[in-house]
Amino acid sequence: MKRIILSSLLFLTVSIAPAQSYDSLMFRSIYDEVLMNGECYEWLRSLCKDVGHRLSGSPQADLAVRWGQAVMEEAGFDSVWLQPVMVPKWVRGQKEYAEIMGVGKVDVLALGGSIATPTDGILAEVVYVNDFTELEKLGRTAIQGKIVFYNEFFDPRNIRTFESYGQCVEYRWKGASEAAKYGALAVLVRSVTPALDDFPHTGSMRYFEDAPKIPAVAISTVDAELLKESIEAGNKMFKLVIFSQILEEVPSFNVIGQLTGTDYPEEVIVVGGHLDSWDVGEGAHDDGAGCVQSMEVLRSIRAAAGQPKRTIRCVLFMNEENGNRGGHAYADWAAISGERHIMAFESDAGGFSPRGFSMDASDAAVAHFQQLRKWLLPYGIHHIEKGYGGTDINPLKSQETILLGLNPDSQRYMDYHHTENDTFDKVNKRELELGAATMASVIWWVSEYGIPAQIR
Amino acid sequence: MKRIILSSLLFLTVSIAPAQSYDSLMFRSIYDEVLMNGECYEWLRSLCKDVGHRLSGSPQADLAVRWGQAVMEEAGFDSVWLQPVMVPKWVRGQKEYAEIMGVGKVDVLALGGSIATPTDGILAEVVYVNDFTELEKLGRTAIQGKIVFYNEFFDPRNIRTFESYGQCVEYRWKGASEAAKYGALAVLVRSVTPALDDFPHTGSMRYFEDAPKIPAVAISTVDAELLKESIEAGNKMFKLVIFSQILEEVPSFNVIGQLTGTDYPEEVIVVGGHLDSWDVGEGAHDDGAGCVQSMEVLRSIRAAAGQPKRTIRCVLFMNEENGNRGGHAYADWAAISGERHIMAFESDAGGFSPRGFSMDASDAAVAHFQQLRKWLLPYGIHHIEKGYGGTDINPLKSQETILLGLNPDSQRYMDYHHTENDTFDKVNKRELELGAATMASVIWWVSEYGIPAQIR
Repeated sequence: MKRIILSSLLFLTVSIAPAQSYDSLMFRSIYDEVLMNGECYEWLRSLCKDVGHRLSGSPQADLAVRWGQAVMEEAGFDSVWLQPVMVPKWVRGQKEYAEIMGVGKVDVLALGGSIATPTDGILAEVVYVNDFTELEKLGRTAIQGKIVFYNEFFDPRNIRTFESYGQCVEYRWKGASEAAKYGALAVLVRSVTPALDDFPHTGSMRYFEDAPKIPAVAISTVDAELLKESIEAGNKMFKLVIFSQILEEVPSFNVIGQLTGTDYPEEVIVVGGHLDSWDVGEGAHDDGAGCVQSMEVLRSIRAAAGQPKRTIRCVLFMNEENGNRGGHAYADWAAISGERHIMAFESDAGGFSPRGFSMDASDAAVAHFQQLRKWLLPYGIHHIEKGYGGTDINPLKSQETILLGLNPDSQRYMDYHHTENDTFDKVNKRELELGAATMASVIWWVSEYGIPAQIR
Repeated sequence: MKRIILSSLLFLTVSIAPAQSYDSLMFRSIYDEVLMNGECYEWLRSLCKDVGHRLSGSPQADLAVRWGQAVMEEAGFDSVWLQPVMVPKWVRGQKEYAEIMGVGKVDVLALGGSIATPTDGILAEVVYVNDFTELEKLGRTAIQGKIVFYNEFFDPRNIRTFESYGQCVEYRWKGASEAAKYGALAVLVRSVTPALDDFPHTGSMRYFEDAPKIPAVAISTVDAELLKESIEAGNKMFKLVIFSQILEEVPSFNVIGQLTGTDYPEEVIVVGGHLDSWDVGEGAHDDGAGCVQSMEVLRSIRAAAGQPKRTIRCVLFMNEENGNRGGHAYADWAAISGERHIMAFESDAGGFSPRGFSMDASDAAVAHFQQLRKWLLPYGIHHIEKGYGGTDINPLKSQETILLGLNPDSQRYMDYHHTENDTFDKVNKRELELGAATMASVIWWVSEYGIPAQIR
């Protein structure tokens, strides 16, 4: 297999050499444009400081929609519009309180979607488990009437932190329902991060049909360690009070702007991130970065290369965090739009130095894009491999759209993810810009040459 | 050339396949050891918080020497010793003051090695130049009796920030003497960084024989912009007061610890960083990171792979910042030690995610090490190329030692370099550890197989 790819690359090198030399100059122009005149960093400052966090259905999310529309209009994209979408509305209570009785207060955040505790809270014994196997072994006798504490450890050995995240996140997602089956009153979930600190990490959870709904919160890693020690020392009584509410769905929008293709306007390349964030911090890395990078892609391509041959469309998706309604709404519309979505490129892994991109596409498509490696290596881009595209663009998969996901260096992401600590000052200007320039280069190349029919 | 290297790699793949499979398992063990049980992050916390900044000749540098010795002794290395070296001593004055008259105070830091102003300071007109060509054009008539302001801009287009640094740093290094030739009273140098902020960046400067000595300071980039605007608006009078002193040389030490080789103890692999820092911030990235990573290399190799066949020696060099006396003292001693220094690996580019390493060595040696690329790619290491080793290890070059320099991602380094802002909280645990694990893997491999005679 390797040999076949290698041969086809050699063939391409020879056959399209003049075009490739032009391409490498265009890549350089795009990177220079972003690094010299990039606006994404100041856009991000504005999104973080003027809008702040922006959970779907919140007043800040409405503000973010107007902000995105205004930025794209001011940037002078060819058309800018709002795409309606209904989103769930979940509201955190103003007060969240947790205490290991006899030890002290601990830092928690209700998981997104959790119900409230009774007004005077829950006071119960905590049962410690490392995983679902241990939970099952303990069974109803040990769990009934108690609070379950999932202390699943974030494996530091995976070089890409998303792999360890994937291993842990199921406790956040379905831990409440699993514990409720055995009569638990609430669950505490160790924050999904390799960092040992005081920031609880929220995130989405779901109630399944086969169990009662019980409150669920994340506990900081420092306090998870403290809780474990306290239980071992016999301090097992825990007090939990949260006031979160699940409300009726409300209307919101995807924010869309585009450069209309000169030669093939009906062939569309989507670039995007998600505009909503969790209701803590500023949603700087998750996913303010992806939003401003996506707008920078359009701005820099037009500045460095002029109007593209194919349509390049920036979509700021609403509701990735707790429903993905924006991603589905966009794909539903795309299916009946009469356009052909040839590629979608998402940035939703933080505004860190880009290492490459992963592709949810055929082997032939991956090999086709691996041609770019030699032009991208001078920019530190070495990873072009099969993998995941992104949550927001994933619903486009059924339309034979090639899906790309930007892969920034992942070491720091889980320190900030879904916390009060995901703020603008954690984003480095050059790292953010290099991610935008990498996406812009690849997208310009596809806008110029299209996607060959045989690799789709 | 490429084809020749490729063929030899293919040959090696076939001929030493069992060893390579063993090697990849050993690399995994070393990375796991560092990521699970690494001590370097806590060592760095201690160096930054218990010792702090540590300019050569300062009381803190003495404390850092004792700190390094104590850490290595506690880690149980086979031998730990101090190597005497005389170092220059320069002391910043307690008060540094700069003001654009009629505009306001600005942030400056005296450059290391600068003389003081007169006690009541210098009050003079500022002359703005972008570069030495402009300085020469202006000549004595325009410069005499004035303060020269070098506003050389940090080029954001270079992907590796060290390239832009190299273009700017000559103004810091020799700007004072160049301006003094034309009768300047002092120089202000724009801080060498792509960031626009309030932190002046100090660093070493030198007086050359052919010009009088005049004071030299770095000005923050925000204030460099302000100064430029002020000059354009007619506010050219500038007040500068600094009290720095050049004192007599004082004794200090390189701190050395080693694992003695079981089979070839006389073949030595050096790993190191520099223990001294500038006299601001905490010297966290520059170069506390390199010091603790180097000690972690020894610790993790012994823990994951046992006693090495060849001697692995950690050297915490003194005085890289303003003299490189430690590097020279070590090389002088190595030359008469009766040992053979087969390789030296330096980390002095910050504790950021490693991207690879550069090699100051023959083409054959580079090709030999490029064998490792396939084992290192899963750890995000893709860059193994000819380049610079490091300032501290550079004097070993005459002894046919292969020199390696760790290449971490360079985007953030110049934000912190030589400023109050180079503090422990700017270092990410995993990024620091990945750098240590990368060095440890390569060093273990060389300790196991040595360096083939034909590639030296």
